[in-house]
Amino acid sequence: MTPAQARAAFRAGRVMTTSGVAPGYAQANLIAVPRADAYDVLLFAQRNPKPCPVLDVTDPGSWTTRLAAGDLRTDLPKYRIWEHGELVAEPTSAQRWWRPDLVAFLIGCSFTFEHALAGAGIPLRHVELGTTVPMYRTSRACRPAGPLSGPLVVTMRPVPADLVATAVKVTAAVPAVHGAPVHIGAPEALGVDLDKPDWGDPVEVRPGEVPVFWACGVTPQAALSALPFAITHAPGHMLITDVPESTYRSEG
Amino acid sequence: MTPAQARAAFRAGRVMTTSGVAPGYAQANLIAVPRADAYDVLLFAQRNPKPCPVLDVTDPGSWTTRLAAGDLRTDLPKYRIWEHGELVAEPTSAQRWWRPDLVAFLIGCSFTFEHALAGAGIPLRHVELGTTVPMYRTSRACRPAGPLSGPLVVTMRPVPADLVATAVKVTAAVPAVHGAPVHIGAPEALGVDLDKPDWGDPVEVRPGEVPVFWACGVTPQAALSALPFAITHAPGHMLITDVPESTYRSEG
Repeated sequence: MTPAQARAAFRAGRVMTTSGVAPGYAQANLIAVPRADAYDVLLFAQRNPKPCPVLDVTDPGSWTTRLAAGDLRTDLPKYRIWEHGELVAEPTSAQRWWRPDLVAFLIGCSFTFEHALAGAGIPLRHVELGTTVPMYRTSRACRPAGPLSGPLVVTMRPVPADLVATAVKVTAAVPAVHGAPVHIGAPEALGVDLDKPDWGDPVEVRPGEVPVFWACGVTPQAALSALPFAITHAPGHMLITDVPESTYRSEG
Repeated sequence: MTPAQARAAFRAGRVMTTSGVAPGYAQANLIAVPRADAYDVLLFAQRNPKPCPVLDVTDPGSWTTRLAAGDLRTDLPKYRIWEHGELVAEPTSAQRWWRPDLVAFLIGCSFTFEHALAGAGIPLRHVELGTTVPMYRTSRACRPAGPLSGPLVVTMRPVPADLVATAVKVTAAVPAVHGAPVHIGAPEALGVDLDKPDWGDPVEVRPGEVPVFWACGVTPQAALSALPFAITHAPGHMLITDVPESTYRSEG
């Protein structure tokens, strides 16, 4: 599927995790909040750039982004609607809930570098299994901004020990989609129980493999509970953009 | 001078351009605006990251930054006070003008990489001459944010032709302080007349040298005219931070 075909399918109601869909194109997390709360979200992202690399911000009331032709209210496979930190709905279209004062933040997603990881010979277990990458709240706190605060959230991928350095190099080259891992091995030092992801599905870490953790775009979503209203993507159900992943390779 | 000694001298009233001062430490542009306008400034920076790499944002009413021990109202050599785009004062202390609702943005400065350029054998003419680096408004427009709009502003340094590639490599490694040049040679294609800088002093480009242009932190300052009130540094008169320049070398 091309990015446009994938978005058309989601617009028509198809629901699926987007990991592995439209390989080679950047994917993005969605957070839409009222204009009055937008500064705090943008500042939270500025203060926590590793989990929150901002790729685009829409003008209030607009539901289009320069990252993807289409409609942000309908073109993701699944949304979450939040009121005062409570999940009130998980619809496949956010049209009913979209308000004229909403500002949408598009935040880089580690799905973007999975194509490059696979190209470097690194197997991606959750893609092989057709499940959602496991995501964990860690014991590491983000730097707060106004009422927004919360833990760093990470994704985990098991990597064969002889390929861990390669995984670091490949992802360090794409800082706009979380960059290098934040933690390698020793999940307990991060406050993580591998068997119990907070989102997504657990995957086996086999002998000879090391759990590798990358900062995750669900981090700002986990910090939103102080806000009266927000619309986000459902974890694993991202915006597929028209931007080739290579665009985000760092100039260094 | 150490960064703390330099700030103490400026606090005591000494006025000088900070290029070449406290080599090896990051320098920063200052923009302070009322909280009500802070979102537009932060969004302008997000949309124009090359000229506006945000290093820190203070909480409203605070005049300290984690980048430098001291007082942002007094520790720069010279300030500019703006009302509705008019320059109303150029004091050596901003204490009288600081308001409780101000939010201060510290933005990366190309002075930060001059130490690395010099270390790579690239002569810096404005440092040799003791003048302020020439800065130019270009014909290239920034992406607007709310009422903020304006041209890309650049600094220019003449570089011997055989060292231009080195200058690119050295500065590409520090994206938080503007990164690689935005334009090399052909000033007319950028709408620039080398003899007439908009800020700073002209420098000679000698035979065998090429004018190399980097994005400049004066860019957001040039976009502020729509705002009712702002305090900025005076061009060339930066905040000297306690952060070693090497901190901002990219992970790639």
